[in-house]
Amino acid sequence: MVNKIALAGCGNVGTALLEILHEKRKELYDKYSFEFEVTMITDLIKGSIVNPNGLDLGTVLNAISKDGNFSSMPQTKGTLEELLDASSATVLAEVTPTNIQTGEPGITHIKAALSRGINVTATNKGPFAIAMKELAQLARENNAKLRYEGVVMSGTPLIHMLKEGLAGCTVTKAEGILNGTTNFMLSEMGEGKSYAEALKDAQNKGYAETDPSGDIEGWDAAAKVSILSQILFDTRVEVSDVDRHGISDMTTEKVMDAAKRGFKVKLIAGVEKTDTGARAYVRPKEIPFDHPLATINGVINALTITTDNLKDITLIGPGAGRRETGQALLTDIIAMSR
Amino acid sequence: MVNKIALAGCGNVGTALLEILHEKRKELYDKYSFEFEVTMITDLIKGSIVNPNGLDLGTVLNAISKDGNFSSMPQTKGTLEELLDASSATVLAEVTPTNIQTGEPGITHIKAALSRGINVTATNKGPFAIAMKELAQLARENNAKLRYEGVVMSGTPLIHMLKEGLAGCTVTKAEGILNGTTNFMLSEMGEGKSYAEALKDAQNKGYAETDPSGDIEGWDAAAKVSILSQILFDTRVEVSDVDRHGISDMTTEKVMDAAKRGFKVKLIAGVEKTDTGARAYVRPKEIPFDHPLATINGVINALTITTDNLKDITLIGPGAGRRETGQALLTDIIAMSR
Repeated sequence: MVNKIALAGCGNVGTALLEILHEKRKELYDKYSFEFEVTMITDLIKGSIVNPNGLDLGTVLNAISKDGNFSSMPQTKGTLEELLDASSATVLAEVTPTNIQTGEPGITHIKAALSRGINVTATNKGPFAIAMKELAQLARENNAKLRYEGVVMSGTPLIHMLKEGLAGCTVTKAEGILNGTTNFMLSEMGEGKSYAEALKDAQNKGYAETDPSGDIEGWDAAAKVSILSQILFDTRVEVSDVDRHGISDMTTEKVMDAAKRGFKVKLIAGVEKTDTGARAYVRPKEIPFDHPLATINGVINALTITTDNLKDITLIGPGAGRRETGQALLTDIIAMSR
Repeated sequence: MVNKIALAGCGNVGTALLEILHEKRKELYDKYSFEFEVTMITDLIKGSIVNPNGLDLGTVLNAISKDGNFSSMPQTKGTLEELLDASSATVLAEVTPTNIQTGEPGITHIKAALSRGINVTATNKGPFAIAMKELAQLARENNAKLRYEGVVMSGTPLIHMLKEGLAGCTVTKAEGILNGTTNFMLSEMGEGKSYAEALKDAQNKGYAETDPSGDIEGWDAAAKVSILSQILFDTRVEVSDVDRHGISDMTTEKVMDAAKRGFKVKLIAGVEKTDTGARAYVRPKEIPFDHPLATINGVINALTITTDNLKDITLIGPGAGRRETGQALLTDIIAMSR
């Protein structure tokens, strides 16, 4: 069966997915018997293009790099529902920007696809922090698949591991470094830079937004542990109920003082099982040098999962990046095609 | 569908699988809709028992702990083929001891099951170091599934990650710590113990065999990178062709001297893609303190996988243990039931 892929959102990550698909068409067929066409792309800025037999990816990528939009190509007008219907899509990649408060427009997009029996992969945290149970239920009712490898640790296959690799284990706790921006800043401060310099560097490198509060106040990490709480413990911890303390009161002095005593300061996010459900937290913590988490520098993420059968398992890998997040979509699409 | 599980081999690992299955029957059904019976167990020492409707696991585990064998239960005589046929098994867990030279009796057992269309999970390295391609081919021909999570890093879900979690990534290299016994010994030597003391401790703890050469000469790690070479690069590197240097000439002095300079000595096993196929190696290496692999102590294993889309991913977890390896079988069995 040829997988017909629709994209809602075509910014950095959506474009990276298209690039990977274009480069690897033969490799994906040889290794996974995976055949595909991209039949729809809709983006608020770039426009909407549909071809149920497959868009020419070379032409699409060329238009993105030359014009920054699809104005050189025939546009299709319509709502997302109409575009999906016109595209004969079998899978939707939902890569619109995250809104942790409302989950929109992601929730609406995902529901539109699932209710049509179209599989969905998403990298957008909002819908899962807010409506995971409802979306999973809708997927079951419509016999569609729903995956979201990219919502925590980007393409590092954490969710794959939690859902399939550790099947049969009982997880009691997960704890680690889930925000790259703050980890980068703390790494810089450990080398003597001031908080302000570290923040500026993070912004210059494109890690932190102009309004960096989502990262430095711990909201991003809180959304991730909220999602993990649902995956691991089937318990909803609202993002606002996460015991959250960011790094805005951290100083270079404190970081350097900890280093003298043999510790690195890390913003640690975690979730653990309790008698009544789960408890989630985000807070700076001193980690001894000889602990694996102390060696995680820059924008790399890491999570240690505590289980009954395997004790501790730690997964380390990128937590962001356009190509890394495009990979998350791809691995989900391949998994759903099997 | 009720999964009917047959066990070839019922030593520590096979018994651990039975314990986990017995403890978690309800949890496995609730979480994965996984239903099972154990319909056959055959073991050279304990005997052979078969019931196509399901053996009573409480009775079986009681017999193992009281008598160390199945003499209190009705025995079924026959070849493995006859036992499999009598058991109506849908999946075979192959947990006989590893023989890296011949791959037997594992290869014969796996072939018997696959040729009957029975799925197989195995923790025995021998068959995969020697006959992976042939076994995978036989599985395809008979529309049966073949998994082997436990052959490298025990139940730490490495193979799951390589085969499914990283689908769409191109791996160029994998390198890490794949032998727990030598890592334990090197950790002890880093604390000042002599090579002889460290070896004795490893033997007392049951990590090292009476003849420890398989571990300390690097044969065990070599078999693992040989298997990884086939999984990652579809290239057979014979165990004897692995560039292999063990730790038998390592001294406490060398380990302590490296520590003074900021390095830990680790037995590093790796495999990397070359123009003509793959190159595999096992050798002691000095790792800087601030590298994640330097923090891996005792019998824990770790592997860093270098890829195109995700750069480096590191997985850390147990590399041995009865319950840990039982978990490897279970996660495979659940995956094959989906």
